[in-house]
Amino acid sequence: MKKIVQKYGGTSVANIEAIKRITMQVAEINKQGKQIVIVLSAMAGETDGLIKLAKQISYNPNKREYDALLSIGEQKTITLLAIALQSKGIKAISLLGHQAGIITDQRYADARIITINTARIEKLLQKNYVVIVAGFQGIDEENNITTLGRGGSDTTAVALAAALKADSCEICTDVDGIYTTDPNICKKASRLKFVSYDEILEMASLGAKVMQIRSVEFAKNNNVPILVRLAFGSKGGTMINNKGEKNVVTAVICDKNQARLTITAVPNKPGVAAKILLPISEAGITLDMVVQNISSENKADVSFTVPEKDFERVLKILGKTAKNLKAERATGDPDVAKISIVGVGMKDRPGIAAKMFEVLGKKGINILMISTSEIVISCVIEEKFAELAVNALHTAFGLDKK
Amino acid sequence: MKKIVQKYGGTSVANIEAIKRITMQVAEINKQGKQIVIVLSAMAGETDGLIKLAKQISYNPNKREYDALLSIGEQKTITLLAIALQSKGIKAISLLGHQAGIITDQRYADARIITINTARIEKLLQKNYVVIVAGFQGIDEENNITTLGRGGSDTTAVALAAALKADSCEICTDVDGIYTTDPNICKKASRLKFVSYDEILEMASLGAKVMQIRSVEFAKNNNVPILVRLAFGSKGGTMINNKGEKNVVTAVICDKNQARLTITAVPNKPGVAAKILLPISEAGITLDMVVQNISSENKADVSFTVPEKDFERVLKILGKTAKNLKAERATGDPDVAKISIVGVGMKDRPGIAAKMFEVLGKKGINILMISTSEIVISCVIEEKFAELAVNALHTAFGLDKK
Repeated sequence: MKKIVQKYGGTSVANIEAIKRITMQVAEINKQGKQIVIVLSAMAGETDGLIKLAKQISYNPNKREYDALLSIGEQKTITLLAIALQSKGIKAISLLGHQAGIITDQRYADARIITINTARIEKLLQKNYVVIVAGFQGIDEENNITTLGRGGSDTTAVALAAALKADSCEICTDVDGIYTTDPNICKKASRLKFVSYDEILEMASLGAKVMQIRSVEFAKNNNVPILVRLAFGSKGGTMINNKGEKNVVTAVICDKNQARLTITAVPNKPGVAAKILLPISEAGITLDMVVQNISSENKADVSFTVPEKDFERVLKILGKTAKNLKAERATGDPDVAKISIVGVGMKDRPGIAAKMFEVLGKKGINILMISTSEIVISCVIEEKFAELAVNALHTAFGLDKK
Repeated sequence: MKKIVQKYGGTSVANIEAIKRITMQVAEINKQGKQIVIVLSAMAGETDGLIKLAKQISYNPNKREYDALLSIGEQKTITLLAIALQSKGIKAISLLGHQAGIITDQRYADARIITINTARIEKLLQKNYVVIVAGFQGIDEENNITTLGRGGSDTTAVALAAALKADSCEICTDVDGIYTTDPNICKKASRLKFVSYDEILEMASLGAKVMQIRSVEFAKNNNVPILVRLAFGSKGGTMINNKGEKNVVTAVICDKNQARLTITAVPNKPGVAAKILLPISEAGITLDMVVQNISSENKADVSFTVPEKDFERVLKILGKTAKNLKAERATGDPDVAKISIVGVGMKDRPGIAAKMFEVLGKKGINILMISTSEIVISCVIEEKFAELAVNALHTAFGLDKK
């Protein structure tokens, strides 16, 4: 008998109407005689409401309690769906993290799944129950509630699919799949039929809103194919696995939430980069790209990018560092964008970076920083050129919709 | 070390402000070096909101799922209080029913506590944690969430006090204790310093809003003294135990939510009362007082009371019964009230009933029905005389505030 895991996210469980739509759809699959496990997120906005409540009491709420509070949202949706299915005469049961045997470590708010004791779920599936599992939550070995971090329901679904050896794992969402680039920026963006785990991982970490990174890592490590699809309706979808064709370039990603900072003419001594960057990391700010050049007089220029929201804070820190290190000055620009191309096939094909720079150059776009890795090439450019760059690269690398 | 269980109900946990007030109070007790277990209800209105959600999906929601849904309310309050206490530097931890070891039977929505595995709570108390337990909920032996019925948080508190051998069990609420009668009806109502379990049980079942009946039964069976007190402030309170003085009359209870129905001149044969009353019970309606008289021609008149809200339905059923049984007619009156006097001391003192009838008679109040039990005497009268009757009885039996 086919075994299927489906996960429905925030907007697909936004209200009672949405719950009823899921009910109809699950009833349909149930008729086909498949074993079904449904993973649900909280209703859209619910978790944010709970966070707001906690923050009214404490800016830094106790983590154990915070997790137990946040796990409420999923409890609501899973019980409501179970009630809805039961009212249609379909055997259904909701399981919270602890009932579903989802054991995690004790890293509250960001817990990792250690194991899933699937005995109860297996037994219920054999009795033809639709099993509805709360996403995002688990329980540690001392029976405390833990949560898996933002987007953690994706991880719940993938982990369940792996543990249950499901035939498919579907992430049902408000888009019909994963696109070659942001359709809001490029009208010729097209849906990918297949994409590899590594590409999705890069796309997610480059700022594309696709899936929670950890869920993809989990899927990769356990070789679970994932279908990202529209929650309602059967068309489209993107399959994430390792079987697809190796594209040279699979996607163009644009991240406008970047700011670039530079400290110039720092006397170059060993450890100078650390002296510049440590104060920033210590302030809890994530560094992205870092580039260092040595000028002729043995002075270094160091540039790096940070999230745009942290720009002012970082500029202040960097100003102090410049004084301490007797550098020339600290400057910065919040109006930059990082444009990246991603593709597993570029490993085997030289000249892709050169082609990217050429395309941008022909459009008169100045490249401020470059970074390359095995399957990604990124350029920081002025933000005002972002749309132009994305469209030009999308066309140049043959991604335009036919 | 003194061990104290405190329960806070709906209005005392109504919002963030209320949670903060509880925090201050618990911090105070914590300073005194007592071991503290706090039981919380859901925020006022929260559970009703969840019920409304479920009813939007099904008029008759699956009971297991319904319980798992309703248990959310307490999860919110206990985690918020734990966050608040922790933010004040007080060691505190929230425990859901399953974490607190509260094992119940599987009677969803009305589950009974079978046992409490107190190991985790005891260990936490020894480590000086304030332990905050979700009221109203438990877990059955298969790890399903159950709820204890309306007012079930009282039962949680009493059961915990019994299991932990606590020195006191305080029910903190929006009144400063239990009164000799409803202060809205009688201005001379006074607060009782002591009241016995049996009296409270009768008062609750006569319609006085005091405590959940099952929690008092539990307290009686386990000999747990309960202090009913104002949530905030230390004045007043009523102690429920078996040590107080035996009052002849402890309280006067008035229940206006009663309707009286009568079927007249039913041919009197064995089993006729059952024929009249069974159809009403089978419609799920609770019968209260029942009185039967036999007239000279061997015809029976049967009168009984039901909740006022069911009056129309019962009148219809009774009309049909009258036809079937060839009775004279079915009549009814929704505008009646049941006035009761309660007192454990009346067992040993004859003439209390006679005195009650005399007091009512002197005020020109006609008694429509009478029922007596060991420690209660009830009279059904016209509703318009309810206030008059309560005040007269309150004075006559020496309950007026000095």
